[in-house]
Amino acid sequence: MVRFADCDPAGIVFFPNYFRMLNGVVEDWWASLGHPWTQLVGERRMGTPTVRLDTEFVRPSKMGEVIRFHLSVERLGASSLTLRHVVIGDDVARMRVRQVLVATSLDTHKAIVWPDDVRAAIVRFMERK
Amino acid sequence: MVRFADCDPAGIVFFPNYFRMLNGVVEDWWASLGHPWTQLVGERRMGTPTVRLDTEFVRPSKMGEVIRFHLSVERLGASSLTLRHVVIGDDVARMRVRQVLVATSLDTHKAIVWPDDVRAAIVRFMERK
Amino acid sequence: MVRFADCDPAGIVFFPNYFRMLNGVVEDWWASLGHPWTQLVGERRMGTPTVRLDTEFVRPSKMGEVIRFHLSVERLGASSLTLRHVVIGDDVARMRVRQVLVATSLDTHKAIVWPDDVRAAIVRFMERK
Amino acid sequence: MVRFADCDPAGIVFFPNYFRMLNGVVEDWWASLGHPWTQLVGERRMGTPTVRLDTEFVRPSKMGEVIRFHLSVERLGASSLTLRHVVIGDDVARMRVRQVLVATSLDTHKAIVWPDDVRAAIVRFMERK
Repeated sequence: MVRFADCDPAGIVFFPNYFRMLNGVVEDWWASLGHPWTQLVGERRMGTPTVRLDTEFVRPSKMGEVIRFHLSVERLGASSLTLRHVVIGDDVARMRVRQVLVATSLDTHKAIVWPDDVRAAIVRFMERK
Repeated sequence: MVRFADCDPAGIVFFPNYFRMLNGVVEDWWASLGHPWTQLVGERRMGTPTVRLDTEFVRPSKMGEVIRFHLSVERLGASSLTLRHVVIGDDVARMRVRQVLVATSLDTHKAIVWPDDVRAAIVRFMERK
Repeated sequence: MVRFADCDPAGIVFFPNYFRMLNGVVEDWWASLGHPWTQLVGERRMGTPTVRLDTEFVRPSKMGEVIRFHLSVERLGASSLTLRHVVIGDDVARMRVRQVLVATSLDTHKAIVWPDDVRAAIVRFMERK
Repeated sequence: MVRFADCDPAGIVFFPNYFRMLNGVVEDWWASLGHPWTQLVGERRMGTPTVRLDTEFVRPSKMGEVIRFHLSVERLGASSLTLRHVVIGDDVARMRVRQVLVATSLDTHKAIVWPDDVRAAIVRFMERK
């Protein structure tokens, strides 16, 4: 549900708050794969920073509306991952996002190859769809 | 300066906060044109929502670093406006953004043609550069 | 669940984000009373701004932890309302808050007496406890 | 200046955003003492979490208004520090805050005694006033 805290003086979602929500969706997705960020960031010292984020804002969302985020994997690279998000409210697309993530070391901030178990979990998600 | 509040548990700018900053840069830019949002939103009941936002995150920015936002106009349409942002820290690009805005009525949330004085102010900015 | 977006570079909840969560709890509470903010703010042009907020931060909350907000009404005045919040995680209090709200007109930003139906809904909540 | 991003659908500062600003003021204050958080958090592994925060919201602040934060030290304890903030706009108090901080180790999240140089810097600030 779109909350008061998400909205701007025009009464609609302030766009940085969409990305806050989106980040929560991606966080939940990693947890659903069996690799929550607490594990990746904490134990493995691994980050998944976003390197590209292309967003199309189709329609504004108002306070009190219910919107849903739909996540799919477009492409899995050696150290990258392209996600597609479609945000829908009242059967109407509100926002479409293509997000490219890269696996990195939190110590060097350099890209690393996806660990085997993480890659396998992403592949399983792609096949399930 | 990158603040504590802007950073995530990895110690770098949390990307929705970049968009918060970016929004502040655009807000200041409108004020510098002589058309602050308080006037546009309050008196004219006009919004300038973002309809596309394509972002390339080049390098992370850490707490305490100084980063600068450079704004230029790429294209001025009948009711749209394409801005380019380059964020630079230590002479290195951190983020590049193409942002497309549309003039809208806050009452109908529909696109409107740029008012003449607003268009003239944008054109003066483009010529000054 | 404490999200990545809620945490600061020290890996614990950044305190302004607690207040963002708290605001969501209060928003949900109004909805549960049958008086969602969309109705109060939109139709009735009525706000419920916070005039006092006394907070005790007992223990930090880390990313991935589950914390719960418990809300009770301490006092209902003519135009004010005192709420108590206790935030608990792993059976340990993390934060205690006393929040005083006032009913106001969004047009004048002055205090108003609680409308009868709103007052009755708050009283029913107090009796249910 | 109160920004668009700071305001809620009622057109006034959303209160968690006041605490974001306040945190920035305290961050700047530490830097002005010669002890920026980057040094305290990064090199010394020391935090200064807030343990109490008592806030009185006197008047709302609207988008476009200029507000100033005034910080003074009320009390310096062995491992604690009590700050007073008064936020003023148009010569009118908007918010008054009493904030109690504690020096802690980021590794143990336990309180520690203020290091001598940090304590001396705070004392110099108190005497200068």
